[in-house]
Amino acid sequence: MEPTTHEASGTSVEPPDKTARICLITTGGTIEKVYDEHTGELVNRRSIVRRMLSELRLEGVETEIVELMSKDSLDMVEADRERVVEAVRAALAEDPRPAGVVVLHGTDTLAETGERIVAALASPPVPVVLTGAMRPFEMKRSDALQNLTEALFATRALAPGVYCVAHGRALPFPGVRKDRRSGTFVRPVAAPAGADS
Amino acid sequence: MEPTTHEASGTSVEPPDKTARICLITTGGTIEKVYDEHTGELVNRRSIVRRMLSELRLEGVETEIVELMSKDSLDMVEADRERVVEAVRAALAEDPRPAGVVVLHGTDTLAETGERIVAALASPPVPVVLTGAMRPFEMKRSDALQNLTEALFATRALAPGVYCVAHGRALPFPGVRKDRRSGTFVRPVAAPAGADS
Amino acid sequence: MEPTTHEASGTSVEPPDKTARICLITTGGTIEKVYDEHTGELVNRRSIVRRMLSELRLEGVETEIVELMSKDSLDMVEADRERVVEAVRAALAEDPRPAGVVVLHGTDTLAETGERIVAALASPPVPVVLTGAMRPFEMKRSDALQNLTEALFATRALAPGVYCVAHGRALPFPGVRKDRRSGTFVRPVAAPAGADS
Amino acid sequence: MEPTTHEASGTSVEPPDKTARICLITTGGTIEKVYDEHTGELVNRRSIVRRMLSELRLEGVETEIVELMSKDSLDMVEADRERVVEAVRAALAEDPRPAGVVVLHGTDTLAETGERIVAALASPPVPVVLTGAMRPFEMKRSDALQNLTEALFATRALAPGVYCVAHGRALPFPGVRKDRRSGTFVRPVAAPAGADS
Repeated sequence: MEPTTHEASGTSVEPPDKTARICLITTGGTIEKVYDEHTGELVNRRSIVRRMLSELRLEGVETEIVELMSKDSLDMVEADRERVVEAVRAALAEDPRPAGVVVLHGTDTLAETGERIVAALASPPVPVVLTGAMRPFEMKRSDALQNLTEALFATRALAPGVYCVAHGRALPFPGVRKDRRSGTFVRPVAAPAGADS
Repeated sequence: MEPTTHEASGTSVEPPDKTARICLITTGGTIEKVYDEHTGELVNRRSIVRRMLSELRLEGVETEIVELMSKDSLDMVEADRERVVEAVRAALAEDPRPAGVVVLHGTDTLAETGERIVAALASPPVPVVLTGAMRPFEMKRSDALQNLTEALFATRALAPGVYCVAHGRALPFPGVRKDRRSGTFVRPVAAPAGADS
Repeated sequence: MEPTTHEASGTSVEPPDKTARICLITTGGTIEKVYDEHTGELVNRRSIVRRMLSELRLEGVETEIVELMSKDSLDMVEADRERVVEAVRAALAEDPRPAGVVVLHGTDTLAETGERIVAALASPPVPVVLTGAMRPFEMKRSDALQNLTEALFATRALAPGVYCVAHGRALPFPGVRKDRRSGTFVRPVAAPAGADS
Repeated sequence: MEPTTHEASGTSVEPPDKTARICLITTGGTIEKVYDEHTGELVNRRSIVRRMLSELRLEGVETEIVELMSKDSLDMVEADRERVVEAVRAALAEDPRPAGVVVLHGTDTLAETGERIVAALASPPVPVVLTGAMRPFEMKRSDALQNLTEALFATRALAPGVYCVAHGRALPFPGVRKDRRSGTFVRPVAAPAGADS
């Protein structure tokens, strides 16, 4: 359902109960870290996004999961970011096209990857949403499920574009950055407003 | 952040990091039921929405809570629904106006109240979002926090209008109804598309 | 492991790492209630003790589950209680004998069933432990897992006898009763001390 | 409550509903680790045992908490272990004497500290129970609350002595060791049986 298109066109471009396919690309990051009992450390081993999804009740959504890599985003190199861009590009080239793309990503360099995506894709035909978490999904208190919930919802509610979605808001690229002090993402007002769309 | 307005106007009507005030009206329903150890039953006693909010990490959002009533929606009478409509109207009349209104409501008659609101308000200036849950927030497995997360996010992402938001999607009023068999909300395609906005 | 027998005999009657088999008889009660989304009520449908056990890490314990019935203990009649007594008797008659028996039971009439068991068995050869919960296991906040943990541990730590185990303590039958006001089990001191064993 | 003493003496040495005071000494370890959002690591900062206790329902128990140190047990040196021994000794010297002592400890060197305690105290007048966890309490899946539950229960059910309590069983010192492969504590049968008491 894409209500703003409703307004623009005056007709429903998507029947309300139609299933939307969302491509979910996982790259690791804090959100997917698990506890290693032998080392006592939190590590990225493989994607746990299916476990997260099993805690959500989604209607009219079909998720297609692409497990791209499983890395702490501080360990990502340029080639990794290039692979993310290519995975997003490949998802958008699928026929039929997905209704949106969600990228799970470590927060430390999420903004860098987002800038790369928006620079490479310019105007994607559907929302491309990057999200992550400040605390692993496996912790009792975590923003992981909240952020995944918002990211999935955002692909159906926002206009096409590249966004960082977390902590109750969507910030359009370019211009997003992590504010380490407050533990969230911000988009300083100095960013050129005309660059949003 | 209201990206579709960005597109329409070409300028950002809301600075990205500005705080949005959301009015949260609670009426009870399954989402707010708690366990009574003496009777062994789930009951609506008072709002527990603050406990729910404490599990979310919200940036740039300020919630104003109106505890209107605490009822199983099957016990709501016309006068109760009238009070909900008036509470929404009062919220929209505040100066400054909130960025959105969320109504926590029992799912059994949520659609009836939503129809009343859309009939009374016609074209609200901001999103008015009704949500609830099939399982109480206090159950280990519950759709309560997911739906509240989506409803709050929806007030910042959707175009003005009256919606039911739950289980990953937003359904615009009129035309929403609860599908008891599948335990979710639907909006049959027979609903006139032109009535969406 | 039964340390007090160590003291009495001066030798270890059970090698420390030997596996103990515990017979777990389920009868329903609040501890096993689940949420019925269609009626909005908590009901006893079937045993969920395997789900509870999956959240525990038990070493050297093997549980044998007997799903006897699935009833709110207020609905139990004399014939039900007789079936519980017979199930305990059957478990104790197994060869080899289990190291202990745990009965999951609704708290409202747990004490009545316990009195029946102690009257029928007098001096069981191993601990027979009744437990339940004031809040269903499926609630976020629940004493279910704590009480099951204690009951299982009690079968390996207590001397043979019939007990109610919950909320951090073991109360020997006869003489136990539920204190509805405080929501726990008590054993008034007026009970004859000589009746403990 | 110490039922086997009941049997030995024929009288109840502890009125069933009397409150037992348990001294809880915290030293840190995995069980108390919390997530540091800035470093992305699990760290011992201060004791979180009060948060753990708030999730338990304990009747007839009063806990006295001694926050001794907050260390990963791999970082403990001899002087730290000496402080633990002295803290246990001080707890046992209190008047009135506590009904038991529980020590929260990292699992990696829990056995070493336990050996030191049993060597120093020989025959303590009440149960002294060491416990810890393989996964932090703050993880969704954790053995922390189970082990704390068992340790507290053990102080009321076991005969006086020094024990490691975790994962459903009590292992008497000396002779306990951590089995890193299986992630639990064991007590090889080669340990002299006569050393149990």
